[in-house]
Amino acid sequence: MSKTKPSGVITITTDFGHKGPFAAVMKGVILTRFPAARVVDLAHDIPPHWPPEAGFWISRSYRYFPAGTVHVAIVDPGVGTEREILVAEVGGHVFLAPDNGLLAPLFAGNVDAAIFCLNVGRLSRLGIATPSLTFHGRDIFAPVAAELASGRLTATDVATPTASWTPGWLEDPEVTSDRVSGIIVTVDAFGNLISNIDQGLLQRFKTPVARVGGHRFELRQTYGRVKPGEYLALVNSFGVLEIARAEGNAAESLGTDRGAPVIVAESGDS
Amino acid sequence: MSKTKPSGVITITTDFGHKGPFAAVMKGVILTRFPAARVVDLAHDIPPHWPPEAGFWISRSYRYFPAGTVHVAIVDPGVGTEREILVAEVGGHVFLAPDNGLLAPLFAGNVDAAIFCLNVGRLSRLGIATPSLTFHGRDIFAPVAAELASGRLTATDVATPTASWTPGWLEDPEVTSDRVSGIIVTVDAFGNLISNIDQGLLQRFKTPVARVGGHRFELRQTYGRVKPGEYLALVNSFGVLEIARAEGNAAESLGTDRGAPVIVAESGDS
Amino acid sequence: MSKTKPSGVITITTDFGHKGPFAAVMKGVILTRFPAARVVDLAHDIPPHWPPEAGFWISRSYRYFPAGTVHVAIVDPGVGTEREILVAEVGGHVFLAPDNGLLAPLFAGNVDAAIFCLNVGRLSRLGIATPSLTFHGRDIFAPVAAELASGRLTATDVATPTASWTPGWLEDPEVTSDRVSGIIVTVDAFGNLISNIDQGLLQRFKTPVARVGGHRFELRQTYGRVKPGEYLALVNSFGVLEIARAEGNAAESLGTDRGAPVIVAESGDS
Repeated sequence: MSKTKPSGVITITTDFGHKGPFAAVMKGVILTRFPAARVVDLAHDIPPHWPPEAGFWISRSYRYFPAGTVHVAIVDPGVGTEREILVAEVGGHVFLAPDNGLLAPLFAGNVDAAIFCLNVGRLSRLGIATPSLTFHGRDIFAPVAAELASGRLTATDVATPTASWTPGWLEDPEVTSDRVSGIIVTVDAFGNLISNIDQGLLQRFKTPVARVGGHRFELRQTYGRVKPGEYLALVNSFGVLEIARAEGNAAESLGTDRGAPVIVAESGDS
Repeated sequence: MSKTKPSGVITITTDFGHKGPFAAVMKGVILTRFPAARVVDLAHDIPPHWPPEAGFWISRSYRYFPAGTVHVAIVDPGVGTEREILVAEVGGHVFLAPDNGLLAPLFAGNVDAAIFCLNVGRLSRLGIATPSLTFHGRDIFAPVAAELASGRLTATDVATPTASWTPGWLEDPEVTSDRVSGIIVTVDAFGNLISNIDQGLLQRFKTPVARVGGHRFELRQTYGRVKPGEYLALVNSFGVLEIARAEGNAAESLGTDRGAPVIVAESGDS
Repeated sequence: MSKTKPSGVITITTDFGHKGPFAAVMKGVILTRFPAARVVDLAHDIPPHWPPEAGFWISRSYRYFPAGTVHVAIVDPGVGTEREILVAEVGGHVFLAPDNGLLAPLFAGNVDAAIFCLNVGRLSRLGIATPSLTFHGRDIFAPVAAELASGRLTATDVATPTASWTPGWLEDPEVTSDRVSGIIVTVDAFGNLISNIDQGLLQRFKTPVARVGGHRFELRQTYGRVKPGEYLALVNSFGVLEIARAEGNAAESLGTDRGAPVIVAESGDS
């Protein structure tokens, strides 16, 4: 923030669904303070009150936006209680989210993350005097994001460096001598099962095979490399292991959803 | 609009769902006439042909947008018939909607609303010669909104002051000596049941208790003030009474949906 | 594009649903290359891996956007295989889509379409060196669209004229001496059944009657011309035959969905 020029772009990630004016009024607040803002909806289909999926997508997506983008995430079951709000700078981008583990996947892979705790008392200078107790997305996150994205504010103006934050809700993949164990974090519109196992963890295997719910899936390069209807495992475009069914819906066919364990091992071992 | 400088922002509220290119072509028409427009989707999940929810959200949301914003609402079962189209100025914002009761919740609380009836015959000067009979959102509302938002047009250029408009479809909350009766207007993605009872109506009670479908809900400040799974009533961030279940889905658990009656009374009275 | 000045507007049509950050990262890539881009989501509810509906909507919608708009469509079951990518210029607009039949409905009605085949080898000049094998929307389509929309690139810079492309997946309506046969291409949020029968094909009939699934529907001008609950056929605002139920949901009531045959004949003949 201090180092990167703001891009004027703000992304919003929430568990609001595509219902009601909740994301819209955040945009209204942003445009009131910073008329030149360009706001992009990153994802609004995060399961209610489940921060890990928001953090997963943000940590895997932010690099596709211009440097100096502000990424706001509102999955906030603790709104109105004493939970803190984090501001972070990672890789030339700025992140704003409740301190509930949401940003942990981002911090995990970035040892040079600069992490701050928002000092809500200092927000009165922004004219944020009496936020509601139930919608900080509109009353705190949106105005702070607008000020950060406009370049009028930097993290250190309203936040204090911190060395502690809430850990992520999901365990990191477990790595043993002959296997890697992870979890399905999300399912896309095609029914592809997307895990938290990074491609780097697969390099130890000569011919990796993934197992989910008693089924075995061989690793391929892309969907088109198997016949329609056949299953495959692949490293997807976000760099993680995915289970898919070519021109089909793996999640529905397998009856598998978020939270399912995934195990990868050498082909001959299992 | 004659008094407030246009902000260049246009919001769109419809019952189109998130299906097809219907909202998109409205944006195309707007950008064709006014390339600098910034268009925000307010809500597209209004139940088909049910104007009251559109009016509820617009009346509760518009103040979060910059002054001089144009708010367009298309919930329009009477499209192609003789129904009128209203242009209104309220609190420095401009509103454009079919005259079917949609804007009534906005007018109710604003005695200084300036209300006009669109003179469709005068639209030929805007090059709107032959609108379709089935999609005035694209063929009338979008071009008029673009012209209003650009500052090239004011309401009085194409509309005539009117003192009559279609009343709202929902009755205002009924207030008696010992109770206030309202209705559930909408349900958000968390399953929170949102009523039309304004917080001002609750001040008459010392310890208000809300009743919906035979259940009693005590008034709390925010979701975090009860244990996960417990129910509560609260004044939400839009200033109305809401029934919620902490980290749960009240609508599903209670089997309650839009249209359910809500009664508030003193704690000891019921 | 060589003839029309770019508008700076880009539309995106996909089968990604409204899930995850897939459309968002395309926007991030676009804004990184072309910060002044204005991106409009045309439709994301195309059924997975079904190009015809994307092509139908694009061919019927593009004219409502400013001349010089770039329309990107990603319904791409063949991603990562040898399928080609088409760039086309039609009516002053630019189109970018996989060569899988998606754009066929657009080409069908435009004999002066200029069609090019993207030379992926030439993309290295744009810094597109190693696209993923599974998300060309982000890695090829988005950056090429940004360069085209910015005016820095024209189709001929990276694509070669071609006279062959994959035909559409749906047959054109069949016209015989006494009837026109088509198909339901899509269903909107109101349950209206939208066919591929253009209004021009109806002019041969004096009193056309449409038949779908054993039911007969008389042609009316608009929804408001029948009583609530009654069915009708009409030419909709996109110029095609539609079956609707006034203030009701025809698709649900009739149990009819995409793919259903539609036959139009003279009233007395059937």
